[in-house]
Amino acid sequence: MTYCVGLFLKDGLVLLSDTRTNAGLDHISSFSKMHVVEQPGERMLALLTAGNLAITQAVWNRVQEGFPLGEEVHTLRDVPSMFRAAQLVGAAVRDVFETDGPAMKAQGVAFEASFLLGGQIAGGPMRLFLIYAAGNFIEATADTPFLQVGEHKYGKPILDRVVKNDTSLADGVKLVLISMDSTLRSNLSVGLPIDLMVYREGEQKVSLSRRITEEDSYFRQVSQRWSDSLREAYRALPSPGWIAD
Amino acid sequence: MTYCVGLFLKDGLVLLSDTRTNAGLDHISSFSKMHVVEQPGERMLALLTAGNLAITQAVWNRVQEGFPLGEEVHTLRDVPSMFRAAQLVGAAVRDVFETDGPAMKAQGVAFEASFLLGGQIAGGPMRLFLIYAAGNFIEATADTPFLQVGEHKYGKPILDRVVKNDTSLADGVKLVLISMDSTLRSNLSVGLPIDLMVYREGEQKVSLSRRITEEDSYFRQVSQRWSDSLREAYRALPSPGWIAD
Repeated sequence: MTYCVGLFLKDGLVLLSDTRTNAGLDHISSFSKMHVVEQPGERMLALLTAGNLAITQAVWNRVQEGFPLGEEVHTLRDVPSMFRAAQLVGAAVRDVFETDGPAMKAQGVAFEASFLLGGQIAGGPMRLFLIYAAGNFIEATADTPFLQVGEHKYGKPILDRVVKNDTSLADGVKLVLISMDSTLRSNLSVGLPIDLMVYREGEQKVSLSRRITEEDSYFRQVSQRWSDSLREAYRALPSPGWIAD
Repeated sequence: MTYCVGLFLKDGLVLLSDTRTNAGLDHISSFSKMHVVEQPGERMLALLTAGNLAITQAVWNRVQEGFPLGEEVHTLRDVPSMFRAAQLVGAAVRDVFETDGPAMKAQGVAFEASFLLGGQIAGGPMRLFLIYAAGNFIEATADTPFLQVGEHKYGKPILDRVVKNDTSLADGVKLVLISMDSTLRSNLSVGLPIDLMVYREGEQKVSLSRRITEEDSYFRQVSQRWSDSLREAYRALPSPGWIAD
């Protein structure tokens, strides 16, 4: 499995993905699921992928090498807008489905893939999309300022409670790390290292990129202190008067 | 959907279930999913059910009215041990599968059901089982002192981090309410009111039973203070030094 999350904040995007892939429990590998296209000052697009690795790599190859969108062939380096970028990824998934779907179906392999696409192209707004295996997509807005793909449930409660569109980028970093930490603890198929990226609105370049390993002292601190805080928080809750200790 | 959780603690059991059932988003009803058999001083068994309501009610009818287990017909009121009680529930599920499974399959309805069975019969130990739709089952132990059925992921991280076998019953009550609150907030198909039960080891009777509605002041307090604590806890985390606010 995989866990990827993207925050769509007033000041920018915070994107986080794990790196674990598995084909059964005894075949575990590490692949980055965060792919970046950057032309500093002109565009920064990040594609985070979840699902079957053969599908997601096939999609990434298509959108890098060039793929027809309408009458023109485009890559993520030359699409004119974020909307067109999302359409390009969607068209690429549909093409992979046409190419590989029948053989996968014949062998009983589900066609599972989903994508977060976030970024900004000069002259246009910053956007964050979630693209489904069918190639259609939805977009984050100020009302729902985060999107997730993969194993999303464990890490959702903290985001549901706290993330707002005007959350700062630094707080956003804390929150996606907490969300990831909850997922890592509850599901073995999501694993370190994790890839973090911060994009500041209007910069059209990667503002911060960081691979977080088990040795990362900040992540260890977040993880430990968050555990401690939860323990303290539940202890500080009043006991129900109707039960003796 | 449903969320049921049971804690297997040194001092007793803490059991909690929601009451929402739905057949589509526009057909939502409230059914208790916690069924109790009690002969004070002799036995207390609680069956918590998740999954297709027609299946779980069919199982509950069988184990109340009497169902063959080996050569004898038993109910949960006269099985000689908790192990036999778990076998009885398992046998009842298998019977429902034989009776209703083919017609359900023909109409494309999944045979989904799972159960938590907890309690104690005088002379035997307190036990907590999770029984699957196939009628087989697993048991909670001191190493893994909680079991969940239904929509379990949202409420799992807090249990993973905190619940130990020697957690007190009062703390157990707080923790299952927090776990339920996280689930309620993230998944509309799990809903109030919720049914709470506490069983003290050795009592062979319901030690505490409480239906918690939206008006329950303790639950509201837990829910509100927990949200506040999480918000404070993440704010208190140090900001990553590598990003400006």
